[in-house]
This record gives sequence, structure tokens and C-alpha cells, in this order.
Amino acid sequence: MATIAFIGLGNMGGPMASNLVKAGHSLSVYDLVPEAVEKLVNEGARAADNPGQAVEGADFVVTMLPAGKHVAGIYLGEDGLLQSLDPKTVVIDSSTIDAETSRSVGQAAREMGIGMMDCPVSGGVAGAAAGTLSFMCGGAAETFEKAKPILECMGAKIFHAGDHGAGQIAKMCNNMLLSVLMVGTSEALRLGQDNGLDPKVLSEIMGASSGKNWTLEVYNPCPGVMENVPSSNDYKPGFMVDLMCKDLNLALENALQNGSSTPMGALARSLYTSHARKGNGKRDFSSIFEFLG
Amino acid sequence: MATIAFIGLGNMGGPMASNLVKAGHSLSVYDLVPEAVEKLVNEGARAADNPGQAVEGADFVVTMLPAGKHVAGIYLGEDGLLQSLDPKTVVIDSSTIDAETSRSVGQAAREMGIGMMDCPVSGGVAGAAAGTLSFMCGGAAETFEKAKPILECMGAKIFHAGDHGAGQIAKMCNNMLLSVLMVGTSEALRLGQDNGLDPKVLSEIMGASSGKNWTLEVYNPCPGVMENVPSSNDYKPGFMVDLMCKDLNLALENALQNGSSTPMGALARSLYTSHARKGNGKRDFSSIFEFLG
Amino acid sequence: MATIAFIGLGNMGGPMASNLVKAGHSLSVYDLVPEAVEKLVNEGARAADNPGQAVEGADFVVTMLPAGKHVAGIYLGEDGLLQSLDPKTVVIDSSTIDAETSRSVGQAAREMGIGMMDCPVSGGVAGAAAGTLSFMCGGAAETFEKAKPILECMGAKIFHAGDHGAGQIAKMCNNMLLSVLMVGTSEALRLGQDNGLDPKVLSEIMGASSGKNWTLEVYNPCPGVMENVPSSNDYKPGFMVDLMCKDLNLALENALQNGSSTPMGALARSLYTSHARKGNGKRDFSSIFEFLG
Amino acid sequence: MATIAFIGLGNMGGPMASNLVKAGHSLSVYDLVPEAVEKLVNEGARAADNPGQAVEGADFVVTMLPAGKHVAGIYLGEDGLLQSLDPKTVVIDSSTIDAETSRSVGQAAREMGIGMMDCPVSGGVAGAAAGTLSFMCGGAAETFEKAKPILECMGAKIFHAGDHGAGQIAKMCNNMLLSVLMVGTSEALRLGQDNGLDPKVLSEIMGASSGKNWTLEVYNPCPGVMENVPSSNDYKPGFMVDLMCKDLNLALENALQNGSSTPMGALARSLYTSHARKGNGKRDFSSIFEFLG
Repeated sequence: MATIAFIGLGNMGGPMASNLVKAGHSLSVYDLVPEAVEKLVNEGARAADNPGQAVEGADFVVTMLPAGKHVAGIYLGEDGLLQSLDPKTVVIDSSTIDAETSRSVGQAAREMGIGMMDCPVSGGVAGAAAGTLSFMCGGAAETFEKAKPILECMGAKIFHAGDHGAGQIAKMCNNMLLSVLMVGTSEALRLGQDNGLDPKVLSEIMGASSGKNWTLEVYNPCPGVMENVPSSNDYKPGFMVDLMCKDLNLALENALQNGSSTPMGALARSLYTSHARKGNGKRDFSSIFEFLG
Repeated sequence: MATIAFIGLGNMGGPMASNLVKAGHSLSVYDLVPEAVEKLVNEGARAADNPGQAVEGADFVVTMLPAGKHVAGIYLGEDGLLQSLDPKTVVIDSSTIDAETSRSVGQAAREMGIGMMDCPVSGGVAGAAAGTLSFMCGGAAETFEKAKPILECMGAKIFHAGDHGAGQIAKMCNNMLLSVLMVGTSEALRLGQDNGLDPKVLSEIMGASSGKNWTLEVYNPCPGVMENVPSSNDYKPGFMVDLMCKDLNLALENALQNGSSTPMGALARSLYTSHARKGNGKRDFSSIFEFLG
Repeated sequence: MATIAFIGLGNMGGPMASNLVKAGHSLSVYDLVPEAVEKLVNEGARAADNPGQAVEGADFVVTMLPAGKHVAGIYLGEDGLLQSLDPKTVVIDSSTIDAETSRSVGQAAREMGIGMMDCPVSGGVAGAAAGTLSFMCGGAAETFEKAKPILECMGAKIFHAGDHGAGQIAKMCNNMLLSVLMVGTSEALRLGQDNGLDPKVLSEIMGASSGKNWTLEVYNPCPGVMENVPSSNDYKPGFMVDLMCKDLNLALENALQNGSSTPMGALARSLYTSHARKGNGKRDFSSIFEFLG
Repeated sequence: MATIAFIGLGNMGGPMASNLVKAGHSLSVYDLVPEAVEKLVNEGARAADNPGQAVEGADFVVTMLPAGKHVAGIYLGEDGLLQSLDPKTVVIDSSTIDAETSRSVGQAAREMGIGMMDCPVSGGVAGAAAGTLSFMCGGAAETFEKAKPILECMGAKIFHAGDHGAGQIAKMCNNMLLSVLMVGTSEALRLGQDNGLDPKVLSEIMGASSGKNWTLEVYNPCPGVMENVPSSNDYKPGFMVDLMCKDLNLALENALQNGSSTPMGALARSLYTSHARKGNGKRDFSSIFEFLG
């Protein structure tokens, strides 16, 4: 069993750390919120007073932080964790952040002989709790092999997308595509309804045809088509509009930097942003079905 | 075995009629192009001099025509086929046309006691030849049950979408969604490539995540990701841009009539139309990947 | 002074007819709503019992009707007005309808030796009352010259756009462009506001720069920038969202028929349609500023 | 007459500096390209060996640099110009860059008691040569009053948009709107042409109606409508597609940071980016007319 430092015990990080404890690993945890730490301690983890103490003697470091500036802040600089880590430590950053930060932090680690991976996840809070997350990983192949057994305690699908930053790029591309699937599926179902079709029947037909996609089959946005999805529960999240906006902003910012043309992704971002600004940020992202009117 | 009149032996109608012959049915066929008729006669069908002669004594009538005006023209009016059909005949129109025409022709048939279904297909020329088409059917449930055994000779999936016109609506919604999936998938793969990711790896990751969709998995638009798809064969069709434009025009026209909002479908239609106008109408619709630049 | 039949005395037609009466012309008027007729009679017009009676002995016929089917219905067919008109009559249809109907009715008139123009207007109810409408006219040049003095009693700008239907096309293109200007201007002002700029200052700067356009200068969508525009009066129309949707539907339907690519117009149509479906159809079209959020 | 340091003598900066010399000011100039410096020296300026030497004793400093990093680089840091400037110097940065950099550099100057303005321009190379540029200025009102006489030697319209960064915001909003006007106008003219209308006549009608806008009247994108515009000269710039992409990227990046919804601006950015990627980056931005097909 490994000694693991886990920093960032929020909605996602908390249950991910729990799964590592359940798998028998020895965890040293840190978060700004005492209740979040306390919960993990009750499950068997040790509380650290600060990130530096958490990583002492760790085989693996896992961070789950809100934005690129937090990741850069905790790892880089004179007081950064990279300065105090043993080169054999494997560093896993599961934060969903801009690829550029992942690249620069990953590169800084590499230059110090430390293996680091950007490993953002998909699957949401439910997936974090169930240990069925997908991990999209960027970094060296040998680091990936070392990190994989740890990631498998928290997720069901572990992908090696490429070098530093590639994990972020893969998630960013996937979630941009997801937003397009969601709006496109909502439009198609709306159009069918406006013509008197039963959305259940239409969903079944399109799901067996070339319109088949994840949102139609797993996360149908039309109320009443599926049970146990947000659309049949007043669009309670699930995956919030605000989080989709965050991911679309990352994707579009990247597209601006690369000079990539993403007409559908850009349109989805505008629609989701207007939807959020009209008070729907905390609802599930499938509520874009309502936004269309 | 049934006696079937088949009118319209083009790229799709020809192989569909062949499959009915192969299934042992007795076919009387008509088309304006002598070569198309001759081919079916060589396979065992009888040639009719005109549509009226073709339908004499038929248990089933199948039509496969280019546009709504042809369907209205052949069925309605004083010389229309509906006037001469026995009420027990089951009429199957497999043309992809506007739902309004399907509704009015279907309703006219109903008023004369004739069971009629609009049954547009998806699956392309390859599906027509292989007998693996999907049929999306609109009309009365009892007519659907009668038509089903005949449709099963030509297709693998037979759906009852609802009353007259519902087959057209289902196909129209599906193909609008398909266009959005194709553009969205192309954008996501492009963005990944611009960031140095291998599109094969990215396709695999998104295909196992929430970006999963038909175009990614079955018809990948990025050259080299899949074998035996148009993108790996210089975008030779497959399903032509011009045909996607036709289907998107039907969907958008319907959205205008219903006051439905379809921002993604409308954008896809604009992009495909510009693509076609720049000389790409005869290429496969996955070539929108190139259009993005 | 001329004898003029005026059919259709609604929000626009009523004040237009009034201006003809004020200019000294002899009017015979017809409308389905008795109050509308009564108002004109009080101003000096004669009431006709039906359209046929209205046009008896008329030098000019003016119609102002809601949709293409009404225009085709009143002019064409066995009982249509064209059958009973003297060839020297000049027919002015000021309805905003699809160009195809205008072309077919205009062509039918031409074949009977009757000069007809499609003359849709812009300028709204206020322009109709003030006699400052713009007329965009389609038909023969000699008919245009005959119609012009009559149109000048109702409007300030009279344009000859081309042959039959060209008036409709010109208005349709203009109003599609107007919708794009309105959304684009709203976005630019919103973005400036989000950055702390005073929208009055920003409007002044863009109005003196390459962002200059009619909506910015005459009809600013941001509340408080201008007095006496709908945005400063809780978006009371003005020009209703529902009417903009009607005009955009005409434009997009035409684009579908012609295979024209109009990405911005199509997007504006989607946004306005969603806005209308969410209960804003009767508000001024500049309220799209609010829709953006 | 003032002593002015001018740094950055490219396509825009060169003629701007010339106009200051012609107005009788004493110029000390610097650029990395010797030919650019030589040209100004021949007109009467003094050459400086480096930026620090250029600003010695200057009443005004004017910079015209390509991107935010250059502006931050030259002003900030231990060796930055702000360290060596006399507090009475007025600093004018005419570079078109991100507002955030303008804000931070302007704020840094303010903290050192130096009055600084961000003053991006519009009007292009022709406007720079003719001294008819528009300046959109951000900074303190008293600095604006001091800078104005100098700006008036180079431009015709001098606007005070607000505090630090507001000049950049105003230009960014204006140019985003400009891109929307250009695409929208191109679509409307295309749609008219597809219906057989003469684009000159349609331009005249829309220019006198609510479709009136700068691109229609001053910079018509349809070949043959206007003389002396890029569209009638094979789309030779003018204002290049690449520069419009740069400005749209600045606007969209800002919209992402602020959470602003700009559906039309985002669409224009996608279309212009695809257009540039297909080899049209060096053509005039009105060539988007061709892109629509």
C-alpha cells in the first residue's frame, strides 16, 4: 500500500480521497475547510497542517484544485511543493485547468526529475463517489504506468492522452463536444415535439440511428423520457451550467490561443453563458433544453 | 409472396427493389430511366409502361422519389394513383420529403380507405444494397403492421414514429442532429490536433466518455483515424454534402413553419451550404472537417 | 385627385389610408373589422361591402394584408380581383409577404395587362401615421412611375428595387440585416458594460467609428442611452419581436429555397425565436439586449 | 513644440511619427528595423540607440507595439521605462492589446505619479498616413487633456472612453461589432443577388433604411458596388483578415474573462478564423463575402 498526500477535498476531491482510503492506502490530507478534513480523518486519513506537511514522505501526491492559478501557486515558486518533493514521488494533478498551466507545471517537475501527470476527470460527483470516474492523463508514459494503479482506485477508465497538458486537452475537447451534443439533441427533440412526436419514441429512433450520442442515450434532456436523470428531476444537477461554462471557457480560450475554428463550440458557449446569466447557473446543464424555448 | 409495384429505381430505389425481388416477391417496376428498369427486369421484375400500369393488382405500392412535388404529383389529382388503387393496397412512400406533403397525401389516402405510410430511410446506398436500412414510418398502427414484413426485406430496423408525416419528422430530426454531431466532432478533433494530440487517441478517449456519438465511432471525419470511411478515402461519398443540405433545408423549413428554435441546426445548415457552394457538394458530408480549416 | 380602393385597415393600413384621404384622394375602403372601416369613413372615405365593390371604378388599388395566402386569395382565382379590374388600374400591394407569392401574383396581373407592384414598407406604425414610411417596390418601371405619386402621400422614401418580388426581397434583406445589427450592437454594448464602460460614451465612440449603424444611432437597445426609444420605455414596441420573427422567417425561407448561406441571419432568427417563445413576442425587438443576459 | 519619444515605427507607427515631425515636434525615435528609423531620420527625427535613450528628456512618450507582452516588457520591470521617466512625462500607448495589460501598466504608471493613456487607433494605414485616425483613450481626464494636442497631430477624432484600459475596451467592442456588420452585410447582399437584385440598388435601399451601417456605406464588400474599396480591387487590404482575427481574439478572450455572451461576435470569429486558415489571412477582411459562397 502507498503513502498518498491528497490536497483539495471538495465535492470531487472528498469522495476521491475516500476511495483511496477504502482501497487501503495511507492518506495525509489537506484542505482549507476543516469539515472536509475532519470527514476524511473519520474515515482513517491523517490531517496535515499545510500542504508541505501533507507531502512529507509521500509516494504519491494528488491535488484537486479549482483553477490554474491554484495549481501553479501550490507547486511552483520558492515555497512550491516541487522544491520539497523527493524525485521518486509521482504527482497527479486532477484539477480541470488550462492546458498551458499543466504544461508549465509538468515541465517544471520534469526538469527536477519528478514524474507528474495532469489527470482531469469526468463523471461528476456521482462518479467520484462510485469510483467510476474517467481519468484523462498527460505526461510521460512511465509516469502514467506508475500512476495507473492509484487512479484505478478512483476511476473505471484510465486514458493516456499524451504528454504534459494532453489530459487537459482531451477533457476540454470532450466537454466542448458534450455541450454541442446536448444543445443539438435538445433542438432535435424540441423540433420533434413541436411536430407532435413523442420524445420517447423519437429518442429511441435517433438512438438507433446516426443521431445516436451520449446525451440522447444516457442523459436525455427532455423531461419524462428517462428516469433518474436531471431532466426528470427539475434539472437538479448533475453537472451544473456554471461548470459547463467553466469548461467551455477553457476550450474557447485554448481555441483563441491556437487560432482554431470552433463555430459550434463557440455558439454553445454563448448559449450556456446567456443561460447562466439569467439565473440558471446552478441547474443541470441539460436545462439548455428549456432555454431554447 | 406479395405483388409489389415499385416506382423510382434510382441510387436508393434500385437496390431496395432488388432486395424485394431476392426475397421472392413479384415486382412490377417503373422509372423514367430505361437502364434502371432494365436492370431490375434482368433480376426478375416486370417492366410497367407507366405508374398506373405498375400498380394494377398490386398488394403493396412502394415509391422512392426525389421531392415532395413528385410524391404529390403521382398520388394526388384526378389522374393520381390513389384514384385507381384498391382500398386493400398498402402504400409505402420511402421518399425523403417535407412532412407537410406526407401528411396531406397520407390523409388523402386515409379518406379513400387506403392505408399509407411515409417511410423514409437512413443508411445510404450501402445500406440499401445490403438490406440494412432503417425505416422511420408514419401512419396508422394497423398499416404499419401490414407494411412491416415488406420493409424487413429491405431494412434491419423498422420504427413506427407516429401518424402520417411522423416518419419524415423523425428522419428530419435525426439528420439535423447528425449534422450537428458531425460538425461538433470535427471541431473537437481539430482542436485536439491543433494542440498536438493524436486524433486516434482523442477519438478513443471521447468515444469512451460523454463525447461519444455516431460520427465519432462509426464515421470519423478525421483522415486516418478509421479505415473504410470516406475521410480516409479523400471524402468520396458515402453521404454527399448536397444530400445533407437537402435534409437540413427540410428541417429548417419545418422549424420556420413551427416557430422552433434550432440554433445549432441552423448554423450547421449555413456551414454546409457555404461548403457546397464552394464546390464540395458531391463530396462526403464528413468533409466539413476540411471546411473548418 | 385619384379614386383609390384601400383594402386592409389594420395598424399599418389604417393610418396609411388616412394619409391618402388627407391628401385629397377619394377612397373606397374595406376591412373585416367594422371599427376600422368606421374610423376611415369618419375621416371621409366610403365603406365598401366587399373587396369587389371597393375596387369598382378605382384608378389605384392598395392592399395591406397579413400573409401571402391572403394576397393570393384576394387577387387570384375565379373570383379574384384581377378578374374584375380594368387594365389601366394600378395595383399596389404593400403587404410584407414571401417574394414568391408577389412574383406569381404580379406575373398574373401582367399577363392580364394590369400594372402591379409589390411595395412593402418599413418605418412601423409611427412612420405610417407620420407619412414617413419607406416603400421598396417591385414591378415594371412604368408602373413604378404611375404608383409613385400615390406612394409619396404615405411615405418619404420610394425605391424601385427591380421587377415583381424585388420589393419583398429588398425588405427581407434589409430586415435580416437589421436583426444582425441589433444583436451585434447589443453584444458590443453588453461587453463594454461588463468592462465598466458607460454605454452612452461607448455608443458615441462606436457611432463615430466603423461600428456605426442604424440600431446604434437611432434605436439604441441599451436602456438609458437614448430618450424616446423602446429600450428607455421598458421595451414597449416599436417593432415587436413577433414581427421580426415573421420577417426573419421570410428571409430564411427564401435562403433555403435559393441555397443561400446566411449564418448571422440564421443565428439571429434562432435567438429571436427563443426570445419570443419565452414570452417576449409582444415586446420591442431591441429587448434582445436583455435576452443576452 | 514638444519633445516626443516615439517607439515602434511599423506600418502604423511610421506614418504617425511622420505626422508629429510635420507638426513641428522634436522626435527621438526607436525601432528594431534600421530602415524604419532611417526613414524618420530623413524626415527630421533623431535616432535613439535604445528605448531608454529615446525617452531621455521627453515630454511625451508614444509607443506602437504588436502585443501586450511587448508593452508590458518595455514599461514594467526593473529596466522598464517607467523607472526612468520623469513624473511629468505623459505616456501614450497606441498599441492594440488586451485591456488587462493596459490596465496593469497604466496602474503601475499612476502609482509612480506618471500620467499614462491607452490610446489604440482605428483608421488603418491610410488613416495613419493622412492623419485622420480615431483615438480611443483610457486614463485619467487630466492626462487625456494633456495628450489631446499631440493626438490631434495624428488623428481626426479623439475620444476619452474612461479609465485605464477603457481605450482598449472601446476599440475591441467597436471592432467586434464591425466584424458582425461586415458578415451581416455580406449575407444580405448575397441573398439579394441570389434573388436577382442588383447589389448597387440593394445597397442604396438598405443604406437609406434600417440596415444602414458603416460597412454598407463606406466599405461595401460586394465587388463592383463601390470604387476605391478592397472588394473592387480583388480584396487587397485595407484591413487584413489576420488583423480582424487578432482583434476578435482580444474581444472574445475578454468576453471569456468577463462571462459575457457574444453569440454574433463568436460566430464572426469562427468564420474569420476558418477563412484565414484557408489561406486568406492577408486579404482584406471584406473578402468574407467570398467565404460565404
